[in-house]
Amino acid sequence: MTSTTIAQPASAPLRFETSPDQYRHWRFEVDGAIARLSMDVQENEGLRSDYQLKLNSYDMSVDRELADAIHRLRFEHPGVRVLVVESAQQGVFCAGANIHMLGTSSHAFKVNFCKFTNETRLYLEAMAEECGVHTICAVSGPCAGGGYELALACDEIILKDDGNTTVSLPEVPLLGVLPGTGGLTRLVDKRKVRRDLADVFSTVAEGIKGRRAEQWNLVDKSVPSSKFAQYVDDRAKEFAQAEGPRGRTSDEAAVVLPPLDGTREDGVVRHKYVSLELDGRIGTIVVKGPDAPPPPDAAAARALGSELWHLRMARELDDILLDLRFNHLDVGTLILRTEGDAAQVLAHDAFLESNAENDWFVFEVKAKLIRVLKRLDITARSVFALIEPDSCFSGSLFELTLAGDRSYMLDDPDHPVSVELSSLNRGPLPMANGLSRLETRFLGAPETLEAALAHEGPWDARGAEDAGVVTLSPDDIDWEDEIRIAIEERASLSPDALTGMEANIRFAGPETLETKIFGRLSAWQNWIFQRPNAVGEHGALTLYGRPERPVFDWKRT
Amino acid sequence: MTSTTIAQPASAPLRFETSPDQYRHWRFEVDGAIARLSMDVQENEGLRSDYQLKLNSYDMSVDRELADAIHRLRFEHPGVRVLVVESAQQGVFCAGANIHMLGTSSHAFKVNFCKFTNETRLYLEAMAEECGVHTICAVSGPCAGGGYELALACDEIILKDDGNTTVSLPEVPLLGVLPGTGGLTRLVDKRKVRRDLADVFSTVAEGIKGRRAEQWNLVDKSVPSSKFAQYVDDRAKEFAQAEGPRGRTSDEAAVVLPPLDGTREDGVVRHKYVSLELDGRIGTIVVKGPDAPPPPDAAAARALGSELWHLRMARELDDILLDLRFNHLDVGTLILRTEGDAAQVLAHDAFLESNAENDWFVFEVKAKLIRVLKRLDITARSVFALIEPDSCFSGSLFELTLAGDRSYMLDDPDHPVSVELSSLNRGPLPMANGLSRLETRFLGAPETLEAALAHEGPWDARGAEDAGVVTLSPDDIDWEDEIRIAIEERASLSPDALTGMEANIRFAGPETLETKIFGRLSAWQNWIFQRPNAVGEHGALTLYGRPERPVFDWKRT
Repeated sequence: MTSTTIAQPASAPLRFETSPDQYRHWRFEVDGAIARLSMDVQENEGLRSDYQLKLNSYDMSVDRELADAIHRLRFEHPGVRVLVVESAQQGVFCAGANIHMLGTSSHAFKVNFCKFTNETRLYLEAMAEECGVHTICAVSGPCAGGGYELALACDEIILKDDGNTTVSLPEVPLLGVLPGTGGLTRLVDKRKVRRDLADVFSTVAEGIKGRRAEQWNLVDKSVPSSKFAQYVDDRAKEFAQAEGPRGRTSDEAAVVLPPLDGTREDGVVRHKYVSLELDGRIGTIVVKGPDAPPPPDAAAARALGSELWHLRMARELDDILLDLRFNHLDVGTLILRTEGDAAQVLAHDAFLESNAENDWFVFEVKAKLIRVLKRLDITARSVFALIEPDSCFSGSLFELTLAGDRSYMLDDPDHPVSVELSSLNRGPLPMANGLSRLETRFLGAPETLEAALAHEGPWDARGAEDAGVVTLSPDDIDWEDEIRIAIEERASLSPDALTGMEANIRFAGPETLETKIFGRLSAWQNWIFQRPNAVGEHGALTLYGRPERPVFDWKRT
Repeated sequence: MTSTTIAQPASAPLRFETSPDQYRHWRFEVDGAIARLSMDVQENEGLRSDYQLKLNSYDMSVDRELADAIHRLRFEHPGVRVLVVESAQQGVFCAGANIHMLGTSSHAFKVNFCKFTNETRLYLEAMAEECGVHTICAVSGPCAGGGYELALACDEIILKDDGNTTVSLPEVPLLGVLPGTGGLTRLVDKRKVRRDLADVFSTVAEGIKGRRAEQWNLVDKSVPSSKFAQYVDDRAKEFAQAEGPRGRTSDEAAVVLPPLDGTREDGVVRHKYVSLELDGRIGTIVVKGPDAPPPPDAAAARALGSELWHLRMARELDDILLDLRFNHLDVGTLILRTEGDAAQVLAHDAFLESNAENDWFVFEVKAKLIRVLKRLDITARSVFALIEPDSCFSGSLFELTLAGDRSYMLDDPDHPVSVELSSLNRGPLPMANGLSRLETRFLGAPETLEAALAHEGPWDARGAEDAGVVTLSPDDIDWEDEIRIAIEERASLSPDALTGMEANIRFAGPETLETKIFGRLSAWQNWIFQRPNAVGEHGALTLYGRPERPVFDWKRT
């Protein structure tokens, strides 16, 4: 549908694991309670060799490091109270996502790239509330597009008033696309910039500087050149004094996240607890329950560190979800299975829930689980959970069935299966809409919700269907055919229609900044990323940086 | 971008005015307090001759009659308390929007068609709360896609349990598009159907019937064939007893809506109070203030009827907005001007506000004004208001400037201009997000909102800019250049990027069913309407009804 060159992101599969010693584009320095992430993008070390990452523009190789640093900061630097995001390059803050990379990427890659960068910015945003880490964006030099969207995700934006530093969203006037990494939404819904000023700002390619940027609330403070560095330091020191929540005291207590040591071959990924197998356009994810009881106390959990079941399982599942999103685009249907002892899952859940409020590390494990479940919620694949003998879909693993689009539970008296809630199903693992998955499920039936929450012990298959906590419970005679047909039918439907349908059905109820970004802003961005006015032969995104002017079909829709 | 035949909707401009004596597709009968709208679509009397409207499927010629009937019911039938929506054709309720019509329409027409049908369903939905008219959808025969979306917009759905009658949303499985006329949103957010059941329902082409439809809350009641007609009648009679709000007593008090008698030639539309002039891709709408004081009381207003300034002005503006949407797709920028005496506008506003709560007709006039302003809010064109000498942008006409993307007010001491609020700006004219336009504007600055609301009397240009109620107030030396450049720049930008940007900036704050439908569901539908999997040569929408199977690009985004 477009005549631009559609290059795949890279010939090698895209991997997301990295660590500070491998960073190429960010300097990550921690000095006591103050961390600094300094952007220093290496032009020639992007994901592909056919573009240069000039002017601190970014591609996935840059953003994956940012995501890694944010995650590590939470686990490996409990002494940090403030994070300063800045540029290490003279005269420029960040030019945003690399335009040539966008212009030559496939539609699916563009959409998934934006989804990942959106998730990362939401993680950045969550740090203040969740870990007591105040984030300051120190803007020196032009800060454009995705660069300003990065700033918008920080708690505080400090702008150097030097005549050269501007904030801008030039996507609409220069590229014919949207600032789709939360920019438009955060402008009016987070910073509450007046809509007519937001309109002016979003169409002025050269951006806004100095005092006007502060007056319009595009930044929190505009500071003269001579005082800028001192002001940023002073603000950082101010927040560095704060007490860390839940015993986040010093980096001595750090829990280090080693690389996952899974194996990959022939479409099979095997981590310790989570595996993925591919069969044509169907992917099966198997999650194993814990192989040992939970640790006796939080100190023992910290000693286990990254080996704690919930944490390791969540990290492995995250890795597999990203692998699917970027490296297996044609796998449209995911089957979720579990194996293990439900009692152990419930015991680990109980440990997590009773220690999360008082211990920073256990809290971080829970927060990681929340993020991974949210990543599953917005993964644009159909998700069916199969609840069969020897499965352990209880407690936190029962959330997988609720995150999925449907669940099937075998009703076979000879091989009884059960599911059971833990306290983690009762609120501590919210979706993007702010509700628990059970609350979202029973939005129209508060009595059914109450009954499910009040239910003690396990449900068998019939009981679970009656309680409404699983979709269907075929008996052993029907099971095989019914599942096969359901999966075959699903896999035959238009992948686009399914993506749109799921995006509208999965998040009923209240809207939040997060649901607005993924539900509304992203949908419009996806639309525009498909339009000839942006990506056609004469589209604005295609022609950016070339001498020709874009040619538009002026019809408004 | 698609290889299907792109036909324009019709060679003749599309007009929206009609009246019951001209209806071809609906029977509109009123018997005391009970009105019936019976769908009886004439296959060969659609808007174009290259498709047949089989099985009560609809195109714009059908929906325009529905919209007209709903409007007339409010003004011309104040005695009605219940509206039964039904089919006059044996064996079928409604097959939804005509697929061949959709498949052969341009992208812009499809999007605007869906927007109009969405507005009409919201109007249907508003009748219970606003006019005390309970709406019952009596479903006999298959009720598919847009047919079921029509049912979803009613207060109550009664299903005939006859083995033949089903409700279904076959868009995803059969057409590769979404039920985009509110279907997915109303399913989970209005009827609160469980998301996994909604998932099953939306992928089962043949639909759901009888008791299961009731159990899943897809309908309110499933009634055996033999008792169906009686049950519907009984329910209608039950609501027919209710008292009408604000003196809606009997049809004797009706206010008839005669045709608008405007003239159209050479891109100029002249109604009595509202006109439109086109200059290339710029449209200028001029609204004239009242030419007489308001009537002394509500009885006198009813005697004036459709000539009451607010009502006539609103109807004329509505007509022009629809004309722009369907007949002037390349007009991307609208300039709003007013002419007249602001004091008269304020006097009419005061009359409207002080009589709307006690008089049904005055209330209806206000409600019509709300609908037209909302139609302006979601019209996908850039809207700039120019506040100049001899304008009367006060009170209800000041809402036009707030609905627009920007406002410019001339600051010229020799030709002073002023704007002034009326009580109508202080809450009675809500946007789709449930807030007033001033509240939405000052979402982040409650003190500024308070100050603006507390301000008595007019603002001059400088004062208005300082108060934040206009965007900019250039002086007489800069005015002409600044306005010209602003309009030229706007008109040069990508129409798609502007549509997406405006959709995200205009509705900050709370989300409602209405904003979800226009902001999220419609955005995903627009995306899919652009995808080769739906509209390409081998797309599902293109191939529907032909022997070939669609060929999909399986990549998920």
